[in-house]
Amino acid sequence: MRAVLLAAGEGKRLRPFFQGPKPLMHLLGLSLLERNILTMRDCGIKEFIIVTGCYDEEIREFLGKGDSLGVSLKYLHNSAWKLGNGVSAYAFHREYRNGEKFILMMCDHIFEPKVVKSFITAAEKLAEGEVLLAADKRLEKVWDLEECTKIKAETNKGLYLGKNLTEYNAVDCGLFIGTKALLNSLAEAIAEKKYNLTDGVKRLAEKGKLKLHFVEGFWIDVDDLPSLKEAEKMLLKSLIPPKDGLISKWINRRFSLRLTKILASTDLTPNQITLISFFLCLASAWCFAVVSPFWGGLLAQLSSIIDGVDGEIARLKFLKSNYGALFDAILDRYGDFAIVIGMTYAWFSGTGGVFALLVGLVALAGMPMSMLFKEKFKAISGKQFIPEDYDGVFRFVPANRDGRLLLIMLGGVFNLLPFTLILLAVISHFQTLMRLVKVGNQLQ
Amino acid sequence: MRAVLLAAGEGKRLRPFFQGPKPLMHLLGLSLLERNILTMRDCGIKEFIIVTGCYDEEIREFLGKGDSLGVSLKYLHNSAWKLGNGVSAYAFHREYRNGEKFILMMCDHIFEPKVVKSFITAAEKLAEGEVLLAADKRLEKVWDLEECTKIKAETNKGLYLGKNLTEYNAVDCGLFIGTKALLNSLAEAIAEKKYNLTDGVKRLAEKGKLKLHFVEGFWIDVDDLPSLKEAEKMLLKSLIPPKDGLISKWINRRFSLRLTKILASTDLTPNQITLISFFLCLASAWCFAVVSPFWGGLLAQLSSIIDGVDGEIARLKFLKSNYGALFDAILDRYGDFAIVIGMTYAWFSGTGGVFALLVGLVALAGMPMSMLFKEKFKAISGKQFIPEDYDGVFRFVPANRDGRLLLIMLGGVFNLLPFTLILLAVISHFQTLMRLVKVGNQLQ
Repeated sequence: MRAVLLAAGEGKRLRPFFQGPKPLMHLLGLSLLERNILTMRDCGIKEFIIVTGCYDEEIREFLGKGDSLGVSLKYLHNSAWKLGNGVSAYAFHREYRNGEKFILMMCDHIFEPKVVKSFITAAEKLAEGEVLLAADKRLEKVWDLEECTKIKAETNKGLYLGKNLTEYNAVDCGLFIGTKALLNSLAEAIAEKKYNLTDGVKRLAEKGKLKLHFVEGFWIDVDDLPSLKEAEKMLLKSLIPPKDGLISKWINRRFSLRLTKILASTDLTPNQITLISFFLCLASAWCFAVVSPFWGGLLAQLSSIIDGVDGEIARLKFLKSNYGALFDAILDRYGDFAIVIGMTYAWFSGTGGVFALLVGLVALAGMPMSMLFKEKFKAISGKQFIPEDYDGVFRFVPANRDGRLLLIMLGGVFNLLPFTLILLAVISHFQTLMRLVKVGNQLQ
Repeated sequence: MRAVLLAAGEGKRLRPFFQGPKPLMHLLGLSLLERNILTMRDCGIKEFIIVTGCYDEEIREFLGKGDSLGVSLKYLHNSAWKLGNGVSAYAFHREYRNGEKFILMMCDHIFEPKVVKSFITAAEKLAEGEVLLAADKRLEKVWDLEECTKIKAETNKGLYLGKNLTEYNAVDCGLFIGTKALLNSLAEAIAEKKYNLTDGVKRLAEKGKLKLHFVEGFWIDVDDLPSLKEAEKMLLKSLIPPKDGLISKWINRRFSLRLTKILASTDLTPNQITLISFFLCLASAWCFAVVSPFWGGLLAQLSSIIDGVDGEIARLKFLKSNYGALFDAILDRYGDFAIVIGMTYAWFSGTGGVFALLVGLVALAGMPMSMLFKEKFKAISGKQFIPEDYDGVFRFVPANRDGRLLLIMLGGVFNLLPFTLILLAVISHFQTLMRLVKVGNQLQ
């Protein structure tokens, strides 16, 4: 499937805050247009047609043929862009291939990737002659409802559309699966001097050819500064993975998302951030060993926070990679090892002796066990190990990395190294033992 | 698909060595009949018809309805078993369901599981009215060629069959996919007083209805003591996994297969053997710490050998389980940890001090890294991590478990604990670093 992106408008309302073309306006490290292209690339779309108008040259120059994004870009210029976005959408008829379905997206609407993914999946069932429109019936959640195009819907059919509809139960999200029928309808509307996309879509609704797909997830029309801020907020929120550790969810993300917001506009790659997090572990170990446990503890927690940033940046800027995930997993282990070695050394050279040696060794052995167990479980059963399913009450014990590093921070700040090491040793091995028992009842 | 097992004969030639019914004769912990049922169960076959003759009651009593094997067993008694195995095979016509394909196997032929798997896969293409016969054209590898039924084959068609054929290029392995055509052909032969299975099969060959599937792998007709011994030898050999560690392949398997041969006839489960291997690690650690490194080293190597036995027994007796694999992986890690802790303690309490402490910690951290890397690689890329593909020359460095435990054994026997711990620390982390670099070039 090919995608058509409408990027012809002038973007007047954002003019006071941004001087260039609105499609190229940056939002958390990517221009609006880039973000939409990459969102769709992740859904398997490789060919894009960008309809330009007001800023034809600037956009072509900025994105080129799409090589840097790993996609193929083509441009259509609509010189009559001032008439309305229906004319821009209709410009695609020059490129249309008989029988094809295409995605039509406004370049200034921002969607959480999963929304686009499920929309494209829903398109598979669309019949010839019909058009699919993403709609939102969670009216209480819609941003700037007044500005939206309203829809009177019956089950999954759009009956009437209009900005000033008084009776409505959904709104138009500005994301379509178009067929020849859409282009025909636009042509008819234009012939009657009705130049907006909605004019063409209305006609389809009247003929009973407008199907609706109701979205579940975040989307927004970025039109002014408040909506830009809201988009930023929601995109950042969407970076929290559904299965986050408790400490991570309650504490670390509050800081890591703020850092991600700042770092998004830099060129730092996720792997570089992984390295920074690792070096902070080494610094923490060094502080524990020879400077002060207080700084050791704080640096460990800082590393833990930054350990969330690499993944957030990767998801936010579509930079996820298999190697990045592996690199992060291995360096996290080494970071843990370094800190425990630093703590053990400190205790040993203080009052510890042989007891410190043994506790340190046992605590160190506990560090990789949580990950090791999860990965082996996955390799064997093909299923993700979900702590909630197997750990029972034990999931509240901080034996995962976010929890362990928090304990280490507290141990450092309150200068309780022996106690912390003993605690780490006990909970990490107890967790493994519990998992072996619990899983044994369920895994065959 | 259902399977028909012929278990009607008397088994005269093995009489001097075994008193009971031949189908119930034990071979490495399982009776011939059980082994064949379980081999087919692993290929997805759940319903079996056993044709009995000479030992009807004994066989029924021994296997029952098949609950303990996780399959469903039905018995057909052929009172005229003395006439020949064609009559026994024909007995299945009472149970035959119109249009079905069925597997027909002699209960005293033993096959490597992969042979049966690929045979059953090949059966999918078999046309109505045809019969598929497993045949072996690697004549130089066939056991007791003289006793075999020979086949003159043209590509994958059997032209002539007979024990005394002078011109032949394959032999009959006694494994069929039968259809109605086979039963009809047997009926015709019996009407002419020809009672052997081969008599029926010959007729099919003459009509051009006998298709051949050429096996690749081990099979044998267990008829006498030498063939029983050969079956034992080949089954044991088939337990060595294709991707075995070098030390394991060159040293450990020589001992572990011998142990497996002995332990196969006991009731020890793979998980119990895993536990024994783990306790040997604890004993090794204890010896290192307080008795003598010599015994510590020997026990470590013994544990390494027994670490191979659990998997061998599991494969040999069809006792493989997901939980067993997980249990083994986790206990192996704890075994490693224990031994390194024991060695570190010994060095420390001798002359080591803080240097022993640090080296011990770093060596301990290296122990889980090989597995951790492999599992994470698999989870991320979906591919098995094959050391040969990524480790280059480094695959000859003993950084995997079999190699590490061999180093520990040598370190103990020659009383070189500090050197061994340093070596373990260096090679395990160097291996991880090398893998991170190598994989980086290939993984996206």
